[in-house]
This record gives sequence, C-alpha cells and structure tokens, in this order.
Amino acid sequence: MCADYAGPGPDYAARRGNLRSLLVENGLDALLVTDLVNVRYLTGFTGSNAVLLVHAWDTRASEDRSVIGTDGRYSAQVAAQVPDLRAEIARATAPRILGLAGEWQLGRVGFESHVVTVAEHTAFGELRTGLQLVPTPGLVEQLRMVKDAYEIEQLRAACAAADAALRDLLDQGLIRAGRTERQIARDLEWAMFAHGAEAVSFETIVAAGANSAVPHHRPTGAVLAVGDFVKFDFGAVVGGYHSDMTRTLVLGRPTDWQLEIYDLVARSQRAGCAALAPGVATSAVDAASRSIIEDAGYGPQFVHGLGHGVGLQIHEAPGVAKTSTGTLLQGVAVTVEPGVYLPGRGGVRIEDTLVVREGTPELLTLTSKDLTVVD
Amino acid sequence: MCADYAGPGPDYAARRGNLRSLLVENGLDALLVTDLVNVRYLTGFTGSNAVLLVHAWDTRASEDRSVIGTDGRYSAQVAAQVPDLRAEIARATAPRILGLAGEWQLGRVGFESHVVTVAEHTAFGELRTGLQLVPTPGLVEQLRMVKDAYEIEQLRAACAAADAALRDLLDQGLIRAGRTERQIARDLEWAMFAHGAEAVSFETIVAAGANSAVPHHRPTGAVLAVGDFVKFDFGAVVGGYHSDMTRTLVLGRPTDWQLEIYDLVARSQRAGCAALAPGVATSAVDAASRSIIEDAGYGPQFVHGLGHGVGLQIHEAPGVAKTSTGTLLQGVAVTVEPGVYLPGRGGVRIEDTLVVREGTPELLTLTSKDLTVVD
Repeated sequence: MCADYAGPGPDYAARRGNLRSLLVENGLDALLVTDLVNVRYLTGFTGSNAVLLVHAWDTRASEDRSVIGTDGRYSAQVAAQVPDLRAEIARATAPRILGLAGEWQLGRVGFESHVVTVAEHTAFGELRTGLQLVPTPGLVEQLRMVKDAYEIEQLRAACAAADAALRDLLDQGLIRAGRTERQIARDLEWAMFAHGAEAVSFETIVAAGANSAVPHHRPTGAVLAVGDFVKFDFGAVVGGYHSDMTRTLVLGRPTDWQLEIYDLVARSQRAGCAALAPGVATSAVDAASRSIIEDAGYGPQFVHGLGHGVGLQIHEAPGVAKTSTGTLLQGVAVTVEPGVYLPGRGGVRIEDTLVVREGTPELLTLTSKDLTVVD
Repeated sequence: MCADYAGPGPDYAARRGNLRSLLVENGLDALLVTDLVNVRYLTGFTGSNAVLLVHAWDTRASEDRSVIGTDGRYSAQVAAQVPDLRAEIARATAPRILGLAGEWQLGRVGFESHVVTVAEHTAFGELRTGLQLVPTPGLVEQLRMVKDAYEIEQLRAACAAADAALRDLLDQGLIRAGRTERQIARDLEWAMFAHGAEAVSFETIVAAGANSAVPHHRPTGAVLAVGDFVKFDFGAVVGGYHSDMTRTLVLGRPTDWQLEIYDLVARSQRAGCAALAPGVATSAVDAASRSIIEDAGYGPQFVHGLGHGVGLQIHEAPGVAKTSTGTLLQGVAVTVEPGVYLPGRGGVRIEDTLVVREGTPELLTLTSKDLTVVD
C-alpha cells in the first residue's frame, strides 16, 4: 500500500490473539463479529458481507473453531484474503455461523450489541442454537484504538497524500477568488487520487466566506471572494486508513477579526496537541484546548468536541470531548480540531491527525498551520 | 437539482402524511425515525445526526408534536432545511426526543428495529419514559419503494450522468488496451462529476480479463489487454438519488465463448426487464431472468440475486431475488442485473435501472446493450 514501507504487513492472527485475551477476561467462549470494519481488522477480508466467529481459547483447535462466513459473491475473495481461517459460504451467513457455534456447544458467545440491530438479535434468538448470546459492545474497537507499526505507516501515507494535494492546489493557483467551492473540492479530491489515495476519507468540505461558519458545510456553487476565510476539511484513504485535516486560509489581506479568531484557534489547537500523552484523560485534552477559547469569550462558538480516533474509519474510538471517558495510550491515533464559528461572518477550524507517543505526539498532517494568505 | 425539471419539488409533509396512515394501521401513536436516510426522505434534512418523531394523528396538533432533533453543528441547517417542523438541539439527541414523547404521554411509539442497535434499545429503556416502544421495521422503506415524480426525475438525471460519462470515455478512446482498471475508473468518476453528479453511487467497478469474473471487483493496476472482457458497474448521485448501471465490453474481436455468454446474459436481462409490471412477484422477475441462464447450464455461475430497489440508497427495498417476497407496484425503481462468471476466464453482467409502469417499464439507463467491441 505504501511503496517504500519495509516493515511487516498486518498480522491478523496476532490481532485475533489479542482479542482472545479480552474474551477470556470477559468470560466469553467466543465473539460473533458482525461489524465489517472489525472483520477487516481481524482477518483482512474487505467484502461487503461477512460474519466472523472468534473462538476464545488459544489453541490450534481454537483457530479451527474460528470461522469466517460470507456469500457466493465473495468465495474467491475470502479464500485469497483469509487463507488462514475456515470459510463458510452461505446466503444466510449469520444463521450458518451461529448454527456451527451451536453444534460446537460454545456456550457464552458475545455479540456486538452496538452494531447488531434489535431485529437481527430477535432473529438470532429464533435460531434456537442453545447458545447464550451476551451483549458485548466495543471489544474490537478497544483493540483498534492502539495502532501497530503497519497501521501507523498507512496513516502516514494517507496524511501525506492529503498534504501533497493541498500543496498542489496552492502551487497551481487553484484556490483563488472567482472559483467555486465545488470546483476546488473536486480539484482537491483529484489531487489526492494522483498522490496515491484509493478513496477520499469523507465528502471534502470547502467552505468560503459566511459558509466557513457552518461546521460541516457541503461544497456549493458559491464563488470565493477576496476577504473570505476558506476552510478545507478533507482526507485520503490509503491501505484502508483515513487521514483527516482541516486548514483555514484567507483570501486577500486578513482583517483584525480574522486575525484574532485565527490566532485564538491556532493557540487552542497547539494546546490540545501538546496535551496528548499516554495516561491523559481524553476529557482533559478537550479541556486544555477548549479553555483557551472559553477564556477568550468564544466558548459558545466552539460547538463540537475536540477530536476523535481515526484509522480504518474516519471516526472511531476514542472520542476526545468534554464528556469523553477513558485515557490515552501510546499508539492511539486522534484528531485535534478546535473551531470558532461566527454565523454570517465566517469561521476557523484547524485540525491535525496525530499519534500519541511517550513525550511529544507524532504529527502526521504536516501542512503549515501559519495563516496562509492567498493573494 | 435537475436544471430543466419543471415539476413540483419534494413534498415532505405529504410523505409524513402517508407515513401517518401506516402508523394508524399499525396501532401506533408515533414513530421514532432514527435511520438518517428515512429522516431525509421525510423532512429533507441531510445532516449526520438526526432523530425524527412523527406523531400519528393528522391534525394541526400532530405536526406540533412531530419534532426533529439534531445537535449544535446543525442548528442553522435544520432551520433552513426543515422550516415546517419543530427542531430540538441537543447533544444527546435521542434521549431528548424520547423525553418529549414521554412528557406528551404518546403511548405506543414504534422504533426502527432494523436500524436501532441492541445497545441503543437498552439505553432507550433506561430513560424510563413510560412509553411502550414497539419494534416496527421497514415502514418508511415501504413508502420509499414507490417513487414520486420528483424522485423519478432525480433518478433520470442520475442515470443520464452515468450514460454520458461512459459515452465520453468511449468517444475519447480512454477505454483501450494498455490502460489500467484504476485509471479508467477515475476517468469514469471524473466524467460523471462533469455531467452533474454530486457524488458517485458506490466505488466504481472496472474489471478486465479474468477480473471480470469477480462479481464485485475493486479496480487495480491491472492493465487492459486485447481479448479482455471489461466490466463497468458504476453510478452517479443527483439530488440524493443513485443510478446503477453495468455494461461489459470486449477489447478486440470477441471469441466464441465470449459471444455465447454475452448473448446469454443479454437475453436473460431482457427477460427480466420484460417481466417488470405492477402486481408481479419480485421472485417471479428473478425466475424469468434466471431460468434462461439455468436452461443454458450456467445457473451455478449466476451467483447473486437479480436486482434491488434504488433511490436515496444504492440498495433499498424491494429485493429482486429467488428468495424475495412481495410484489411490484407502479412507480417502484429497481435494477435488473443478471451475470455469468467463469473464474479465471471472465464474466459478463448487464444491468439497467428501470421504473415499473403499467405496460412497459421505463428504462432510465439508456446506454446500448449490444456488445460493444473496442478496437
């Protein structure tokens, strides 16, 4: 995925091994994994239908009794991507896998209660497998928070593609008065693909002038004008991993209010980044950043959480917000993205993707955060 | 969204009125709508967090007691997009809305049990609202199957963007030996944007040679060669509505086996389209198409269902497969997409998007289905 990465590839068996430890801690005999991103994390399978049963006991027999199910569209793909697990091909995939678990009398089987719908759960019960299905939310997500070397390399490559794309647009003079938000969003996405993105992380946000005060603005035919803040929030996917970066530029000479809120958000963002360290509560990271904006009287204009985990999904654990629980660990990848939004006038958000390290966090999005003035 | 469409815009109040009739039929006092696509269908709101409560009783008071909830990021957007409903802004959106329903003593409140997770449902219960929460899967999806004139116009525009994009690539000689699947996929997506797409319906499939035998192949750096089948499965989004079309071309003079399976799939596809009519069982449509492939001995190589509904989602009700239940109605939009896949050699799929009408269905994807030979 990343041409010059010489480290090891993903070790799916090791990830399943880590999960097994959590299953034993939770008194489970197995976990039924139905979240497709979690299945990918644990096996490498990327099809659109999959059910994975991970048996808790770490023996040769436990891998025999771990099994991945999918349907006929993916029989070749599952054999190629998951050579080390038994695969079951069935149209009714979950019933087949639960049926096997029942035959094996696995006992207490966790299911992802934050993913399985009420209707699916009712259908599971009607299978009469004899299994005890135990609501078990977030176990794989807990593992996914801490990225291994392979994952961090993918994140670096994804962030580099986004950095390079914005650089291209600036170098080529594509961000200028007279062009539309939508044109620039397309250019930015195109440039990310040219720099190796396999997809965009989410619908690219380009928001000019008063639109920059809308935190999640969808690009329109609005034309950029001198005097505008222009906010870019965008990312690239490389090897399945998502980058996330926001920068806010100004067209023409910035006014005093623009300089004031840009400086404020930049200071708040630096404080948030500086607070990232193993053992620090995520709510304390939010507070370190937010207090600077609150002290300046703009607290009510910072209407969202400070950040979020990022990896195989654009938003994943941990949340970094006032109400978040939990503490950071070495290797957790998060965004730090404070913003101040003045309705009708404009807004500033500055966002990086970083990895928590002992000492200073590793910054993955390397585009300058000095206020860029486009003439 | 569609520049030359002179008909009426979406009538959200009428859609909520239709839903009310279903609520009364189901003995419900209200429905809690948490599926974001369903919220968009019923209100026009496009934010990423929303909970809608639709009160069952069609009086002025009932609209007063219908309410949409979202969080602070979307307060301006919800006011602009949903001027006709009361909006509640809250970080814990669902608890706020359920709390109001409890204060209003609404009694039997349906929830979307095919969308609400087991964990969310448990949290709803812990709110102790005094409401009776009733699992109510698929009510809004049932309404969404039948498209109104506005929706069909969006689908037409989405299909036209895809048609025009493929035409461009053929006219410009961009589909040829020596180029990669990934290059052509990017070109196709770029061309759809140029023809008015706001997004792509799904990750574009371009599959050449042996890859064409993989039903859902992801484009790679594989280079197209003379003698290849090249399969394109792609779509554009316009006004929120998705088009879906598959065409399979051949590079250079087709061989006998290529002509044989192309002709077979084309005949099967025509039979499937011809079977579309109000009152026909969806399983009978699948059978009409599939029997032709089965009679030719290729049944085991047709590894998926015949088609699916299409609209605000790329896959929605009704399913059109062997095991589908239900019958078609006037105004239902579906795909018809049989395929035959010969592992290691190549495959053919031909897919249209159509609207069920009295008499002949309306074909929305207009690209020719004669075998296109690219020299």
